[in-house]
Amino acid sequence: MTQDQLVKEIKRKQSFLCIGLDVDLNKIPEHLLKEDDPIFAFNKAIIDATHHLCVAYKPNTAFYEAYGIKGWQALEKTINYLNENYPEIFTIADAKRGDIGNTSTMYAKAFFEDLAFDSVTVAPYMGKDSVEPFLAFENKHTILLALTSNQGAFDFQTKKVENQELYKQVLETSKTWAHAENLMYVVGATKAEYLAEIRQIIPDSFLLVPGVGAQGGNLQDVCKYGMNDSVGLLINSSRGIIYASNEHNFALAAAKKAAELQQEMKVILG
Amino acid sequence: MTQDQLVKEIKRKQSFLCIGLDVDLNKIPEHLLKEDDPIFAFNKAIIDATHHLCVAYKPNTAFYEAYGIKGWQALEKTINYLNENYPEIFTIADAKRGDIGNTSTMYAKAFFEDLAFDSVTVAPYMGKDSVEPFLAFENKHTILLALTSNQGAFDFQTKKVENQELYKQVLETSKTWAHAENLMYVVGATKAEYLAEIRQIIPDSFLLVPGVGAQGGNLQDVCKYGMNDSVGLLINSSRGIIYASNEHNFALAAAKKAAELQQEMKVILG
Repeated sequence: MTQDQLVKEIKRKQSFLCIGLDVDLNKIPEHLLKEDDPIFAFNKAIIDATHHLCVAYKPNTAFYEAYGIKGWQALEKTINYLNENYPEIFTIADAKRGDIGNTSTMYAKAFFEDLAFDSVTVAPYMGKDSVEPFLAFENKHTILLALTSNQGAFDFQTKKVENQELYKQVLETSKTWAHAENLMYVVGATKAEYLAEIRQIIPDSFLLVPGVGAQGGNLQDVCKYGMNDSVGLLINSSRGIIYASNEHNFALAAAKKAAELQQEMKVILG
Repeated sequence: MTQDQLVKEIKRKQSFLCIGLDVDLNKIPEHLLKEDDPIFAFNKAIIDATHHLCVAYKPNTAFYEAYGIKGWQALEKTINYLNENYPEIFTIADAKRGDIGNTSTMYAKAFFEDLAFDSVTVAPYMGKDSVEPFLAFENKHTILLALTSNQGAFDFQTKKVENQELYKQVLETSKTWAHAENLMYVVGATKAEYLAEIRQIIPDSFLLVPGVGAQGGNLQDVCKYGMNDSVGLLINSSRGIIYASNEHNFALAAAKKAAELQQEMKVILG
């Protein structure tokens, strides 16, 4: 999917919501555990109930890997189900990968070819040659960790590197890499006031923003400081939506939560 | 496996060699492609031929994920084969993971429980709460990326953060985390001269050292600057050993290459 197509979908749906599919078998409704593949059954129900309210889904690979081969199968079924039934949806493998050149190419193949995701999250610590192999894929997007939403972001990301915080160095430096037009960035909502300065460095890039809701971030503030002419934001919510209920009506409850956020977004876009 | 057990094995085998199992179907002997599981068949042959010459194996997860579910199955078979047949071997999942707290716990479960690896490599960018969930597992080891062996290491890792290079900040800061005794570090052999300063910060920790051979690092230099009283080094070689030949005698050729390194190590240890 191209960035233009994503912007078009955002305007059509009046939503820039991304739903995180972080499936924990201890948290899903008990009746699903009887299914052959409870993880996929859960995802399918959530997707069918919410696809018109969001523009992206983001499975975090950790939650699938923790269940071994069955988890990986559920991830594959989920991305295939999305691509077959809702090809207009932007898909994000939240994998936070990154390795030396030839190894990053293998990761890129894993998420862009074997699993046909539109994008993957990548960690910047290993620098240019660890990220460029992802950027080389046409119409695929690499979402680089810049400023994350957790407390540990203050350990290194906000430390001054040659008079500029490390996350800003990551933004500046990555702009010079080959195919930088395929870059997006993770910027946590818990630091909304940082977004104004971030927008000075990367005015046009899409930002994937976790941390609205459960982690305390505020949607209005994020939009105030982070929105650009093409919207340029994907606001992620995971637990707040998918675990709205663990009863039989869980998908409906998730849709209700997603609709609340979508309505807020509609007002902001209007 | 405890660190003491690892040191004992190093002394018994007179080797601190780690063999990287980075299996690329384009590089393995053609006759193996007829096997049900060519990746596992390759690994099994390499392991059976080299286990007495090394103390650790390190599959890089990228090479398995690139083949989807079949790749993940081959990884599972490989770790199970190692644990059943060679329990004295230290196993490393080279996964370079890292995420917010509850998500890192899922990754830790994936590699320490579902796949019973002794250790996993982790990226430091997201800070303390992204690493501590790994450290919480008893008798398991977290190998934190400090200074990697690729060119991109100079993009951020060697940049000065408050008058100290970022990778040194990572070393210093990580020492203060809960269960820091379970930490080891990745330090590339291509920067052997940096090891003297690194040893001043972390005198006792084990270092996993990639980049000897193929990437240009020198074993003598690494040992000169990096060895401590408990040896404290695991020298990794991947392509140089496992792709020594792609003929029927590939496992023997790999063993010959591994034996050359082991003999060098024996001289250094003696």
